[in-house]
Amino acid sequence: MASEWDTHTALTATADGTHAVELDPGWVVGGGVNGGYLLGVVGTAIAEAVPARPHPLAVSAYYLSAARPGPAQVSTEVLREGGSVATVSAELAQDGVARIRVLATYGDLRAMPDDVATTAEPPQLPPLEDCVAGSLAPEETRRVAPVMERFDMRFDPACIGWAMGAPSGRGHIQAWFRMVDGHDVDPVGLLMVCDALPPVTFDLGRPGWAPTLELTVHVRAVPTPGWLRVSHRTRNVAGGMFEEDCEVWDSAGRLVAQSRQLAMQPRG
Amino acid sequence: MASEWDTHTALTATADGTHAVELDPGWVVGGGVNGGYLLGVVGTAIAEAVPARPHPLAVSAYYLSAARPGPAQVSTEVLREGGSVATVSAELAQDGVARIRVLATYGDLRAMPDDVATTAEPPQLPPLEDCVAGSLAPEETRRVAPVMERFDMRFDPACIGWAMGAPSGRGHIQAWFRMVDGHDVDPVGLLMVCDALPPVTFDLGRPGWAPTLELTVHVRAVPTPGWLRVSHRTRNVAGGMFEEDCEVWDSAGRLVAQSRQLAMQPRG
Repeated sequence: MASEWDTHTALTATADGTHAVELDPGWVVGGGVNGGYLLGVVGTAIAEAVPARPHPLAVSAYYLSAARPGPAQVSTEVLREGGSVATVSAELAQDGVARIRVLATYGDLRAMPDDVATTAEPPQLPPLEDCVAGSLAPEETRRVAPVMERFDMRFDPACIGWAMGAPSGRGHIQAWFRMVDGHDVDPVGLLMVCDALPPVTFDLGRPGWAPTLELTVHVRAVPTPGWLRVSHRTRNVAGGMFEEDCEVWDSAGRLVAQSRQLAMQPRG
Repeated sequence: MASEWDTHTALTATADGTHAVELDPGWVVGGGVNGGYLLGVVGTAIAEAVPARPHPLAVSAYYLSAARPGPAQVSTEVLREGGSVATVSAELAQDGVARIRVLATYGDLRAMPDDVATTAEPPQLPPLEDCVAGSLAPEETRRVAPVMERFDMRFDPACIGWAMGAPSGRGHIQAWFRMVDGHDVDPVGLLMVCDALPPVTFDLGRPGWAPTLELTVHVRAVPTPGWLRVSHRTRNVAGGMFEEDCEVWDSAGRLVAQSRQLAMQPRG
């Protein structure tokens, strides 16, 4: 059976060389469609444009206007292809209005050298059964953020005080993560995972929607199947903006994706 | 007197709507022109394209081919302008061959809210007089990297063992930084500063040129005049690639720029 993710990112080639896609209403959050989902849709189109280099290595998205559920069009332009990598420009639009513009370099992660030298430490999370399921979120939250229904998230209790009105103030949220239908996340899917958790500003006592200006993801390895661990941190709220650093670790204890986004601070 | 930086990034409008620029040979490093300088040139062109929003907030560069000193052309396309920010696509080319492609969101840092809430810590550096001047680099290094002559860099002795054949292995290089002519760095200039230090892989005992695939810079404040402190770190060498995280702090102790790049590991 096709995964929900494959169904929601399915593209149809059109006569003018673009891809048509139907943005699923299940990814709505606040006033728009989740930015990670949009990036996953664009990332799927890019993979189709450079089939010999199917994996995102670095992807940067600039968000131009809020997307709505329904039809969208994705166009791609290959800027350079040759050697081990390809670089592509892409845009997702609705009715001629650009929603996000993307630059990306793709390669084949399976063909890259497999030596690893890392000093990064995986997120320390209590066992699954001691964590707080996202499905326990209040009815009101889930109404504003249907996107939460796409995931099975188990939050570290030490980072979930904000849900009970007691944010830690450290700027840190982390959770176990998998898709709600149990299907594993592939390298393109990691682009979405990096924008799946609630904004880290919740943990600073600043609830509300935090519009992303820019999100860059580095995918560093093909994830081993199973639960992922996802960590979001911010260190610098300034100029009405904050950075959000995300790490995704796989079930084999490998750092499979790193991202940073610059977002506008919620007005709340 | 004009600064060296202003002279080297001076643009001339051309009849076809692009900008002409002369890439100065003083920015050569290894087999090409320093990527931070290229980004500074493109960043200058973008600032001219959206004059009401003169400061880079987020800038992502994808490197397509090595640039050479001499004539280059910069084209810009405004994707969205309105409210507090503008988003622009830009490209630098030589003789019709694209060198770098850029997406950027610009704004006016002086008009942004001035509250700051940060847990980031500035680099701890010994006083200037106890640091190691970049001008002490061996003749051979300076011949391969004339770009070093553009800067007055004073390296933390704890992070400079690699220059004497004894890298620390921690993946960390930090230094005091200013332009060699003493002119202060402006927000566009910070784009260049984020790629000015030697590759952090030197400190891992992996010397050699590390070609940048992607570099994203967030500029968070207008720097206060004076010496900057610049720190480069890497935590994850994997898949033949490494990430390099850079922070730039100004003389007032403020985090003025954060960047991350994905680069190919030197073959050694």
